[in-house]
Amino acid sequence: MAKVKKIFTNILRFLALAATVVAVVFMATSHDSAQVLNLTFTAKYSNTPAFKYFLIAEAIAGGYIAISILLSFKSQFWRLLVILDTFTTVLLTSSISAAVAIAQVGKKGNTHAGWLPVCGQVPDFCDQVTIALIAGFVAAISYFVLLLCSIYVVLSPIFVKLPLSED
Amino acid sequence: MAKVKKIFTNILRFLALAATVVAVVFMATSHDSAQVLNLTFTAKYSNTPAFKYFLIAEAIAGGYIAISILLSFKSQFWRLLVILDTFTTVLLTSSISAAVAIAQVGKKGNTHAGWLPVCGQVPDFCDQVTIALIAGFVAAISYFVLLLCSIYVVLSPIFVKLPLSED
Repeated sequence: MAKVKKIFTNILRFLALAATVVAVVFMATSHDSAQVLNLTFTAKYSNTPAFKYFLIAEAIAGGYIAISILLSFKSQFWRLLVILDTFTTVLLTSSISAAVAIAQVGKKGNTHAGWLPVCGQVPDFCDQVTIALIAGFVAAISYFVLLLCSIYVVLSPIFVKLPLSED
Repeated sequence: MAKVKKIFTNILRFLALAATVVAVVFMATSHDSAQVLNLTFTAKYSNTPAFKYFLIAEAIAGGYIAISILLSFKSQFWRLLVILDTFTTVLLTSSISAAVAIAQVGKKGNTHAGWLPVCGQVPDFCDQVTIALIAGFVAAISYFVLLLCSIYVVLSPIFVKLPLSED
């Protein structure tokens, strides 16, 4: 059972690591420009705070995940890993949520606010951002499942001596 | 120690419940209109998908938190509570992140994308949304601390029989 859990959690860690690398690479290299009324309109991730936050958060999470894979081979670190995995899950969730919210405006616009969609003008930029967001979503889901799995195992009666009474 | 933990976690639950109620009320009632070039421009939360998501997520989380306060008095539900608290933390984090990303564009605009700020035209709407977002932030932080506290207690050697070996 411990071996199956180890294989499963390591698959999730490697999947999340690969996803964060893809997210960082595709977001960092997203770039496109368009000519509108003789003006050159350049789209890149650094023009949007939510995309900058996404890139930084995915990079930090990716770095931690790489270290966590090494730490997962040392059983004495398992408690620390569960705590750090909680922080990583929240960081990945926050970054993908903020980036998707802005990407939705970029794709559909918001007529009520007078914000026009930009994907028609800079399709290459939008395609790259879409791939980065899909990768970010995969990373967040992988880590959420990993965290639930760790918490579930920790909570199982085999590991717990006493009920954590709130009485 | 168990009593201190119970008081602390219940304070966090009540704080998060109050915060989600404030977030829902202020976001749901956010409304303002402005006259721009003889056109009436109306701002309300339902015009923005991220704000709709925020309202729905905060309402679901608030409903769960109210139930969790009742369940926390029955010690047999503590395992279920830790799992559901994990879902709630992720939901609250996701909703506040998406809403803040859009609110930032509403406040500052994005000149690169041609999206103008709207808070100058509809200040009452922006003020209400700001209060809702502060409340959403308080709810997310409270729940994150609550989850960390629960995980930390579950992981403490008093409660755990065996190391959760990944070997």
